[in-house]
Amino acid sequence: MQRRSFIGGVVASAVLLRAVPSCAQGDPLPSWNDGPNKQSIVDFVTRTTTMGSRDWIPVPERIATFDNDGTLWTEQPMYFQVVFAMDRIKAMASRHPEWRTTEPFRTVLADDRAQLAALSERAVVDIIAATHAGLTSEQFRQTVLDWLASARHPRFNRPYTDLVYQPMLELLAFLRANGFKTFIVSGGGIEFMRPWTERVYGIPPEQVVGSSSVTKYVMQAPDRPVLMKEPKVEFLDDGPGKPVGINRFIGRRPVLAFGNSDGDQQMLEWTAAGEGARFMGLIHHTDAVREYAYDRNSPVGHLDKAWDEAVRRKWTVVDMKNDWKVIYPFELR
Amino acid sequence: MQRRSFIGGVVASAVLLRAVPSCAQGDPLPSWNDGPNKQSIVDFVTRTTTMGSRDWIPVPERIATFDNDGTLWTEQPMYFQVVFAMDRIKAMASRHPEWRTTEPFRTVLADDRAQLAALSERAVVDIIAATHAGLTSEQFRQTVLDWLASARHPRFNRPYTDLVYQPMLELLAFLRANGFKTFIVSGGGIEFMRPWTERVYGIPPEQVVGSSSVTKYVMQAPDRPVLMKEPKVEFLDDGPGKPVGINRFIGRRPVLAFGNSDGDQQMLEWTAAGEGARFMGLIHHTDAVREYAYDRNSPVGHLDKAWDEAVRRKWTVVDMKNDWKVIYPFELR
Repeated sequence: MQRRSFIGGVVASAVLLRAVPSCAQGDPLPSWNDGPNKQSIVDFVTRTTTMGSRDWIPVPERIATFDNDGTLWTEQPMYFQVVFAMDRIKAMASRHPEWRTTEPFRTVLADDRAQLAALSERAVVDIIAATHAGLTSEQFRQTVLDWLASARHPRFNRPYTDLVYQPMLELLAFLRANGFKTFIVSGGGIEFMRPWTERVYGIPPEQVVGSSSVTKYVMQAPDRPVLMKEPKVEFLDDGPGKPVGINRFIGRRPVLAFGNSDGDQQMLEWTAAGEGARFMGLIHHTDAVREYAYDRNSPVGHLDKAWDEAVRRKWTVVDMKNDWKVIYPFELR
Repeated sequence: MQRRSFIGGVVASAVLLRAVPSCAQGDPLPSWNDGPNKQSIVDFVTRTTTMGSRDWIPVPERIATFDNDGTLWTEQPMYFQVVFAMDRIKAMASRHPEWRTTEPFRTVLADDRAQLAALSERAVVDIIAATHAGLTSEQFRQTVLDWLASARHPRFNRPYTDLVYQPMLELLAFLRANGFKTFIVSGGGIEFMRPWTERVYGIPPEQVVGSSSVTKYVMQAPDRPVLMKEPKVEFLDDGPGKPVGINRFIGRRPVLAFGNSDGDQQMLEWTAAGEGARFMGLIHHTDAVREYAYDRNSPVGHLDKAWDEAVRRKWTVVDMKNDWKVIYPFELR
């Protein structure tokens, strides 16, 4: 146990040294205000990792899963992957003159905020299909990295990867320092996340679970195979798809899970239904000043039934405004 | 580097101490005869893990993928998962009187070796569907473990998990001790393998990629969700499906891959097509006395086109009879 914790600590510190200088000394969660929610996390980690504790969990079983949009980074005013897809539509428009008169592309190119906000789910799927397919997996990866290097969030005027939550970075590092393996389980595209999750969260590609499109193995030239992305959803890792994705990709049930919307409800239920000590957490977006405030009436990050269930079952509901001293890492600099 | 290697060594030794007592001292591959094939493996690991080497590979990129049937354990006289399914048919027959007159179940229940050997692929799929569906993922896991505890291989009269290859256990441990992350990428069912791969190979469930059936999230009682297996193939992790599965589950391209049949050809091609140092290996089953001898004409473990490609591209083709001192761990006791 001692050795494992030390090893985890070395790796976690190396990854997050810049963001969490105080992680190794004293308080492992310095950006969390003291209170019952912070205490519930520290208690869980202490109980499950102290040898001899009734709630001790063997290291290989310490699986922790995190939703991404709204749980590890901001998801307003719209999912960042949708912004990426719309920016791709604009970048590709000169090669698609027909888009000027075809919906939903016309709306995207016109950049009409009101109409964009009213786009149907079907329209968003069409936009994602048109911009995510016809590329090899490696071309797509490069496209994501190029976009992240240049795009800026409209409100914060910063790269989207700056808009990750400092308290959650601390939580990820704290868990890893205690032998937990941290996974992302997101409704977002798996190939949209993998290019940057290791750098930003310390979560390697093989610990990212997400939605995927059909991909085909194609021999483009002798001895030159590629994986070609097709405009067809293969797996939607959202709602009841999350436990299915966890079972398929990880093959173990999490002992800790964090989400922020009804799309995370089944992941939390699946986590709760295991034997032994469990931790289920929801992030409640309550801070309109420093981030955004939304829940039951928001189309993005809709939090309604999962919230009711969390209250009924006494899961931890984090109140961003009151529980977090700091929202983003750049506030620390 | 030193520290990572040491950490890997600690973990690998803990897992495989019983099987590979001499791993940590001197020769890391004691069950391999000296010769160009053993040398090609040791050279690759040395070149890619020596700091300052032109072929050095950073630790996170050290992804090694292994086929299972015929590469890590025996696959004759038929895939062990098919034996499992047939044993399930027999165990379930009393609840299915109609099977006595319905193919392919009638043939299985009659236990006619000649007819069994002639079963079509479609018949095998039907047998697997009938025996793998209608269970929760946890019930299925227990069924696999119960079967492994009682079933015996017809020729060796030993549990199927005894029929793993000692030289490959040593190779897995050698790679892990040098910072490689070892994965299984098998055409076999992912839920058939995961219950035992950690114990037998030191490969945890989250590093197993395989074929899967559709699984549904079902709330069986209040707050009691289960994952229910359905009789429908969702993903076939074989042939061109292997690079697709690697991309989906791992999200990085392997730098080393081992297979033994044409079903592994695309995984080896995909591995070979990456930049930098690569290792592609095939196991050629040449030892009818200690194991089995088969290649171009075998329906199980058919090795034909992949062999030709391996010869043309100078990949390593392991000759079991001449390269391996020992086949199974029990020969060491």
